[in-house]
Amino acid sequence: MRIVFPIFDGFTALDAVGPYEVLRMLPEADVVFAARTPGPVTDGAGLLTLTATAAFTEVETADVLVVPGGPGARRGLADEALLDWIRRIDAGTRWTTSVCTGSLLLGAAGLLKGLSATTHWSAVDLLESYGATYTAERVVTQGKIVTAAGVSSGIDMALRLADLIAGRVAAEAFQLAIEYDPQPPFDAGSFAKAPQAAKDYLKAAR
Amino acid sequence: MRIVFPIFDGFTALDAVGPYEVLRMLPEADVVFAARTPGPVTDGAGLLTLTATAAFTEVETADVLVVPGGPGARRGLADEALLDWIRRIDAGTRWTTSVCTGSLLLGAAGLLKGLSATTHWSAVDLLESYGATYTAERVVTQGKIVTAAGVSSGIDMALRLADLIAGRVAAEAFQLAIEYDPQPPFDAGSFAKAPQAAKDYLKAAR
Repeated sequence: MRIVFPIFDGFTALDAVGPYEVLRMLPEADVVFAARTPGPVTDGAGLLTLTATAAFTEVETADVLVVPGGPGARRGLADEALLDWIRRIDAGTRWTTSVCTGSLLLGAAGLLKGLSATTHWSAVDLLESYGATYTAERVVTQGKIVTAAGVSSGIDMALRLADLIAGRVAAEAFQLAIEYDPQPPFDAGSFAKAPQAAKDYLKAAR
Repeated sequence: MRIVFPIFDGFTALDAVGPYEVLRMLPEADVVFAARTPGPVTDGAGLLTLTATAAFTEVETADVLVVPGGPGARRGLADEALLDWIRRIDAGTRWTTSVCTGSLLLGAAGLLKGLSATTHWSAVDLLESYGATYTAERVVTQGKIVTAAGVSSGIDMALRLADLIAGRVAAEAFQLAIEYDPQPPFDAGSFAKAPQAAKDYLKAAR
């Protein structure tokens, strides 16, 4: 079970690390962090650096592809080499997935045409510009394409994938292993539910 | 606002990256990943490598200390240099926090004596051996010491900290930014709720 996470300068770390902590527990999981060149890759905040273990050119197949988002995903929308690699990998996957604005990369690669999909709430119009229909759900499954909403939603997506790949008992075991019994202190985690003041704060912080 | 994450071989990546994605949004956040030596540090699964940006010896103060757990945390319980560093940093923090078995390191450093605290469900006895009283809550606050339960609980903890440090509007904004509206597909995220079959699966997988 080869699970491949493409990473690129400006990715959002939690988009990748959330699903990673679930999917790495799959039986015989073989995890690859792929990038243009192996070595350090820095996140969108410029504060966290993850090591890519392989170059895109060295990775020709994946059972599960997990494309994270982040400011770098938006910058990658015109990166034909990256989009081409995504298309080539997708041709052989069992599951092609994205977290947050990673779905924009799937869209730009032409993989979401005519499909329902989700993304970070700030990227809805851009997602739809690639021929997808935005669905305000946390995880959207369309055949083998699975898109998840913003950042933290990758954990929910990975647990659903684990169920599909290894069965419910395994998925529940992984949920217990990461003690995923979420208790957010506020109910501001979606655009529909967040108070206006929180939205204004984010706008001002940009 | 200096936020310091000590990392060590065998840490659990999500323990650090969950809180990181929230706390890095604090006004004037200055994030440091500290380790014995700067450079690559590999997680407990041996599959993910994060870069430490400073050596422990270079980090003398922190406003917020976030100690992750993982197999390496258990191995660190006899590492007097690490425990000593934790004690020195704690002396000047505004908040000293842990995620998962990171609380064992706080315990071994002598910081939890007589306090209520939490940890990963698999480490309860060990936590109590350091003079703490285990509390089956997701986040436990005792003065400036905040301990969180297993792995994914660091996100909940970080949002509570964000509220205490920057106020509720900021914390809600950060929750919206990471679209943290969790929808786990199963209700197996705590030891009390997980079915026996999931517990048996984890035991067999060890």
